[in-house]
Order: sequence, then structure tokens, then C-alpha cells
Amino acid sequence: MIIVKVGGGEGIQYDHLCDDVAALLDQGQQLLLIHGGSHRTNQVARALGHPPQFITSPSGYSSRRTDRRTLEIFEMVYCGQVNKSIVESLQARGVNALGLSGLDGGLWRGPRKNALRAVLDDGRQRIVRDDYTGRVESVDVSLLDTLLQAGYLPVLTPPALSFQGEAINVDGDRAAAATAVAIKATDLVILSNVPGLLRRPEDETSLIARIAPEKVDEVATKYARGRMRIKVLAVREALAGGVPRIVLGDARLPQPISQALRGTGTVIQKEQVTA
Amino acid sequence: MIIVKVGGGEGIQYDHLCDDVAALLDQGQQLLLIHGGSHRTNQVARALGHPPQFITSPSGYSSRRTDRRTLEIFEMVYCGQVNKSIVESLQARGVNALGLSGLDGGLWRGPRKNALRAVLDDGRQRIVRDDYTGRVESVDVSLLDTLLQAGYLPVLTPPALSFQGEAINVDGDRAAAATAVAIKATDLVILSNVPGLLRRPEDETSLIARIAPEKVDEVATKYARGRMRIKVLAVREALAGGVPRIVLGDARLPQPISQALRGTGTVIQKEQVTA
Repeated sequence: MIIVKVGGGEGIQYDHLCDDVAALLDQGQQLLLIHGGSHRTNQVARALGHPPQFITSPSGYSSRRTDRRTLEIFEMVYCGQVNKSIVESLQARGVNALGLSGLDGGLWRGPRKNALRAVLDDGRQRIVRDDYTGRVESVDVSLLDTLLQAGYLPVLTPPALSFQGEAINVDGDRAAAATAVAIKATDLVILSNVPGLLRRPEDETSLIARIAPEKVDEVATKYARGRMRIKVLAVREALAGGVPRIVLGDARLPQPISQALRGTGTVIQKEQVTA
Repeated sequence: MIIVKVGGGEGIQYDHLCDDVAALLDQGQQLLLIHGGSHRTNQVARALGHPPQFITSPSGYSSRRTDRRTLEIFEMVYCGQVNKSIVESLQARGVNALGLSGLDGGLWRGPRKNALRAVLDDGRQRIVRDDYTGRVESVDVSLLDTLLQAGYLPVLTPPALSFQGEAINVDGDRAAAATAVAIKATDLVILSNVPGLLRRPEDETSLIARIAPEKVDEVATKYARGRMRIKVLAVREALAGGVPRIVLGDARLPQPISQALRGTGTVIQKEQVTA
């Protein structure tokens, strides 16, 4: 079972992705799709007069400020616009896709953060209490198994459901890692609008092609910046949960999943011992 | 099995509805929820600079003009905003709700209308070809059975999937009727922001409380106007498909489903013969 996460950044071609999903399923590959929608959420939020804001945590991670109105716009884009457009594209290719958010059937559950510590521009810290964010702590694998066995391709998206029954914005890469761990995936493929982990973020030819699992922390500290830091967090969570191979690949390529599975991108995997 | 359709008109209280769903499930009732979202779609479409338009057919039915951009906004509101807000409300009440559109798993399939005949204000007719509307001709009952047996409450919404794999705007009341017929429901409850079929649309006390199935056409021709004409079409389709009881009820009441099941609204049912 391969878990494929495709980002929601600018320039991602969902048509290539859907072609590739259809081809891989034809070859008998088992997979499950998870997607984001951040770029379009920013656009719609601006158009609706509630422009996006981001919070930086003391440890330097940036996340979307998710008040109740943002959560609503987030759901419109992730669960409505993006999810249904992917499901429709797959259905048009004969793939029996079925879209679910983490709320549905309580598929993704976890704690809501009661208070976020935000670092302001002047370096001072502030506590934000009305935010709806959290993380995925449990995955309803039996729901996924039921759907997979019945021949459906699950297409999953944030938000998740808090233990108190509230919708919470969760990071899609980390939700994909939690899903890969829970379902005992052989591969986790994380596709975004960059070629993988780069030595110099502005130089797409500076790709780091292989990282041994025990070197992830060292390499990440040195090279991962911005969004890539959260992807590396997802990589570490997937490794800790026993996922054998993780690939950070390029969603903009033709056959983006197949290329990642062939090793195009940053591959995180134990050294192969050849006899 | 009771199929409950709740409209998307102005003034509908989803909190009452969700309380009632939770109470009915506690009593051991089996049900399935279908919802609309027309009022909010109009609001969002205006806010996004693509205001709603409506088409009147030569037989006098009004429907939303659904070009590709409208379809996208429609999905944002129906599948994102409204569906996930209902799922979240139910989950917060301990109901394991799971939202699906008719696209998902090809749940609702049917033909797309290749050309719509629209009546213009001056009475002339025009053909509209780039519209994405159609109707539900088949319902994947096995998907619904699988979910119901696993303990999930399906919460369904348009759009549906055309036989060519395109998303199509379908009428929610008629989709509910098709679902009630396919799943052999005992009751179809159609809730909206009016008390039922009224003798005088502007007078909420002029409710028609009972209609014998064989009188539906006669009564409808005399009294149904606007949106109510499509609801009556759904009623006729449900009756023709063997649904024993249909109630047009008021979504604005507390316990709106329970009240409808107790006969508050317009009840369409064969005369009960008492021995």
C-alpha cells in the first residue's frame, strides 16, 4: 500500500497526478490519495475579504491562523473545490474515487491545541486561544479498509476531528504520515511544487537525492527551510512509525507518483544491502 | 429506513435538525440525511463576483444556471461549507456522520442534459449548451448499505456524476426521492423553510395537511408554485417508485424530523383503513 500526499501549492498539475493514479491502479498497485489546498485557500480567503494570516511558533514552524471563519473557508476549498475536482477527474478516468475529510466518520481524530504561542514580528510572544488547529493522533483504518476492499479509492483531506468533536486544521503531510503508519504502508510519497529537499532552496538542481534514516535530523537542520521543515517532521514521524520508504517528490512532473517510486526526488530509506 | 432531505433555504436551523437526528438514532430509528445549500451558494457566488442566474424551462420549472465556474462554487458550498458543518455538528453530538457527494464512489449517476431550453423574459426561447445539470438515474445502494452496516450515518449532497464522468448539478429533492426508492425507504421527509404545501404561498396557515396519492397531480396543479413545483415532482417520483409515505415538513421547527413523522406538514400517503 502506497500513501500519496499531493500538496496544494502553486503550479501543481492534478491532471498528471490523476493520469498516474489511473495507470498505477491498472498495474495492480494499491494506493490511497491525500491532498492539500493551501494556495487556493489563500486566494478564496482574499476574495471573500478574510485574507490569510500565518503564525510562527517559538520553534520556528509557520502555520495558518485558523479562526472559525478561516476554518469555514478552509473546508470550502479543501473539502469542496479541491477534493471534488480530484474525485471528478479520477471518475472521468474510470477510477472509483471517493472523497472524505478527516471529519467524516471521525477518520482522523486528535487533540485541538488549546493555546498557540505565536512569535510576533518584534520577537515578543502572544497566546492565541480561538484557533482551530491540532494534529492527528488516531486513524480509523477499518473505514479505509472497508472502502478499499469494496473497490473505492479514498481521496482524503483535512480538516480532522478533535476529541471534543470540533473540526481542526491539521497539517496534511503529517496526517499522511499518520495514515501511512496506521495502515502499514510500504511507501509514503509526498509530492509538492519543488523537486524534493534542496541544499539551496532557490536552486532546483541542488537536490539531495538520498538520506539515510539516521541522518534525517542532521540533514534537515542544515538544509530544510519554511514548509520543508514540516515535511521533514512528517518524514520523521513516518520513520518512527515504521514506514520503510518515504519519497519527497515533484508534483509538477508527468507521472509524478511513478517517478517518485522510481527514485526521482529525495528518498529516505535504509541502505539496501546487496548480496 | 427514513430518508430525510433538508433544504438549503434561508432561515433553516441545522442545530434543531442535528439534535433531532441524534435523538431519533438513540431511539433505534434508521435514517439517512440529504441536504441542499442554495441560499448560501447564492451568497458565496455574489461575494466571488459570479452572481447566480436561473433558467426557466418551457414547462415552467426554474433551475440554477450551472456553468463550470458555478459548479465549482456549488461544490465549495454544498460539499465543503454545508456538508462539513452538518457532519461536524453531528459528530459533536456523538453521531458518527460521514459526508459524501453524489460524485463520491459514483453514488448518484445519471445523464447530463446536453442542451437546456430556456425561456427568456420576452418569451422567446434559447438553447443553453455549456450547462452542467442532469438528474439521478441510479443510486449505489451497496455503498450506502456498507456504510450503514458499519455504523456510519451518511450525509449526502449534490452534485451527482454524469455517465460521462462529469459533475452535474441535480435537484436535491429529486435525488432524495431516487435514494428513497432505491433503498426501499418507508418514509421520505422533505424539510424546507415553509410548513408544507400551502393553498396560498404567502399564508403559512393555509397548509394542506393530507393529500391522497391519486390526488397529488390535481392538488399540485392548483396550488404548487415556484420551488414547491419541483418538490411535488420529487413526491410523484417517490410515489411511483413505491415509497409508502412522504411528508413535506418545516425545517425551522424544533425536532423537525420527529414532527414531520408525527404528521406535521403535508402528508402524502394512502388512506389508512382501520378495521
